[in-house]
Amino acid sequence: MPVQAIAWSPSGGLRIVDQRALPEAHIERDLESAEAVAEAIRTLQVRGAPLIGIAAAMGLVAGMRGERAAPRERFLAGLAARAELLGTSRPTAVNLRWALERMSRVAAATSGDGAAIWERLHAEATAIWEEDRAMCRRIGEAGLALVPPGAKVLTHCNAGALATGGIGTALAPIYLAHEAGRRVHVFVDETRPVLQGARLTAWELTRAGIPCTVIADGAAGMLMRQAQVDLVLVGADRIATNGDFANKIGTYSLAVLALHHGVPFYCAAPSSTIDPALANGDGIPIEQRPAEEVKTLAGRPLAPAAAAALNPAFDVTPARYVTGYLTERGLRQPPFATGDA
Amino acid sequence: MPVQAIAWSPSGGLRIVDQRALPEAHIERDLESAEAVAEAIRTLQVRGAPLIGIAAAMGLVAGMRGERAAPRERFLAGLAARAELLGTSRPTAVNLRWALERMSRVAAATSGDGAAIWERLHAEATAIWEEDRAMCRRIGEAGLALVPPGAKVLTHCNAGALATGGIGTALAPIYLAHEAGRRVHVFVDETRPVLQGARLTAWELTRAGIPCTVIADGAAGMLMRQAQVDLVLVGADRIATNGDFANKIGTYSLAVLALHHGVPFYCAAPSSTIDPALANGDGIPIEQRPAEEVKTLAGRPLAPAAAAALNPAFDVTPARYVTGYLTERGLRQPPFATGDA
Repeated sequence: MPVQAIAWSPSGGLRIVDQRALPEAHIERDLESAEAVAEAIRTLQVRGAPLIGIAAAMGLVAGMRGERAAPRERFLAGLAARAELLGTSRPTAVNLRWALERMSRVAAATSGDGAAIWERLHAEATAIWEEDRAMCRRIGEAGLALVPPGAKVLTHCNAGALATGGIGTALAPIYLAHEAGRRVHVFVDETRPVLQGARLTAWELTRAGIPCTVIADGAAGMLMRQAQVDLVLVGADRIATNGDFANKIGTYSLAVLALHHGVPFYCAAPSSTIDPALANGDGIPIEQRPAEEVKTLAGRPLAPAAAAALNPAFDVTPARYVTGYLTERGLRQPPFATGDA
Repeated sequence: MPVQAIAWSPSGGLRIVDQRALPEAHIERDLESAEAVAEAIRTLQVRGAPLIGIAAAMGLVAGMRGERAAPRERFLAGLAARAELLGTSRPTAVNLRWALERMSRVAAATSGDGAAIWERLHAEATAIWEEDRAMCRRIGEAGLALVPPGAKVLTHCNAGALATGGIGTALAPIYLAHEAGRRVHVFVDETRPVLQGARLTAWELTRAGIPCTVIADGAAGMLMRQAQVDLVLVGADRIATNGDFANKIGTYSLAVLALHHGVPFYCAAPSSTIDPALANGDGIPIEQRPAEEVKTLAGRPLAPAAAAALNPAFDVTPARYVTGYLTERGLRQPPFATGDA
């Protein structure tokens, strides 16, 4: 069984798996306020484009619990302030903004005072989560034909159960292939600097009994040259309407290597990851994270203190490198119309 | 001034910089026996293809100090046993075998008993070291024209002063360009899993006042796509006569990325790195190192204990990806004749 990355807590807050502690410890943490959720997103306790959208929506609900007695205008003002706070917690994934805008629209369209709006928001956040679970499964079904028995799949970062409300995006076809009894093997890029591959993907696959091998990011080219990789499956944090997409730093290098070696390269994401306002990848804001993520690990210096480090969290892969896009609507090709999003 | 990675110790042993401790501590360690040198090579206290050749030659001399009173045959037998021990300490770099064979030939060709042969070996090991220093400088001169003012150079692993007896191979042109007052900037692949880029290259460049930026290995593709890299300079552990070469894992991925983006890609090495017995790269033995180097760092788990990891120390880059080879004889192109080695 894939891990469950998020849920409502008994008190009505969020219960998350603190992803900073993996793989050393499986710690569940309850977040009681929008501030706590924003902090958890910023510090990567909760990460993965679909999951931070769900967490933000649920965080709004948790954060507004104390305002249920408020009259309409005060409630909506408090909601807007919390949406603003959550919306700026990370810049690249469009799902965060998408979820917050959906919650705000629902609030505006609901009549009545705090209590009525809050009830509607609770239902809406739960729906966002449940829809994501369903989308993950449909993405998996759409990709199942790409993962025949014996397939060797390379993935990067974590686009699995820990990145979504369900069984993941890039990992969804792998979970379903495994469920179907197909012997698959997953090569997992460790994904420096934050090591989401080694720490998270390898953890959730191992936990589910799916054979996997962690590699240094630099080893992917050699594996492809040795014909050890049948296909590459990655997630996405934002997809432009022409198909260019942002994903974890290193994805673009992998796409170039896959093209060079004739290895099919697929991007898997719910269609909420498509940004209808973006014609191409040039406009995607790329989060620059602290140099210390590259230069240190658990407080231990990996590079001299005097050295500079560059730490873009994402890169952009142009559409021409992508064999196909797995969404809940099937295996698709750009351009993606505005209505897709 | 570049760091001095190796020297004779006052007692006649080897004085090395323990490269496991960098960048946290600059520890010099004296090795008094061939066993200690073999262990230092195996555990990466001393690494870098040219430097392990020098260390092995000097290790023979240090290890035979106690046998100087031995008659010829007993001395040669002791020498052969120590050469065997040192020769199996790491499999990929040909310089190790080259240096040991050179020392053995010299011993065989020297008449007399232990004392006479030992004196000759001491002189030969010192010559191997001094020749390497001179070769580094000539490689630097051969590559200086490739590094114009303002050049942005990407390098992988450590092919610098810490990998040689002198100013390095891939870093030699950079040191000379810096000496000549040319403003250069070096992007340093951190080079997982052992982080020789972040730990060693960034350390020695920073120490020499050369501006550098450490990046995760996965970020190289994005930098090339943004035209932030003018050329790639890497070292080599073994070069086949057709130009195929083994170097640190990740080098091949970088070569594919460089070709794809039209970025010149140079391999720098003394000609002792050319293996005249190898027609192409298929025959280069690739060292498989422990999975723990990928799965843990300083005792801290980076991946779940149950996950497998693959840890090839090197990959092979076919000659067709290489713009040119910098050796002490200039900028060259294969095929390399047997006489080149």
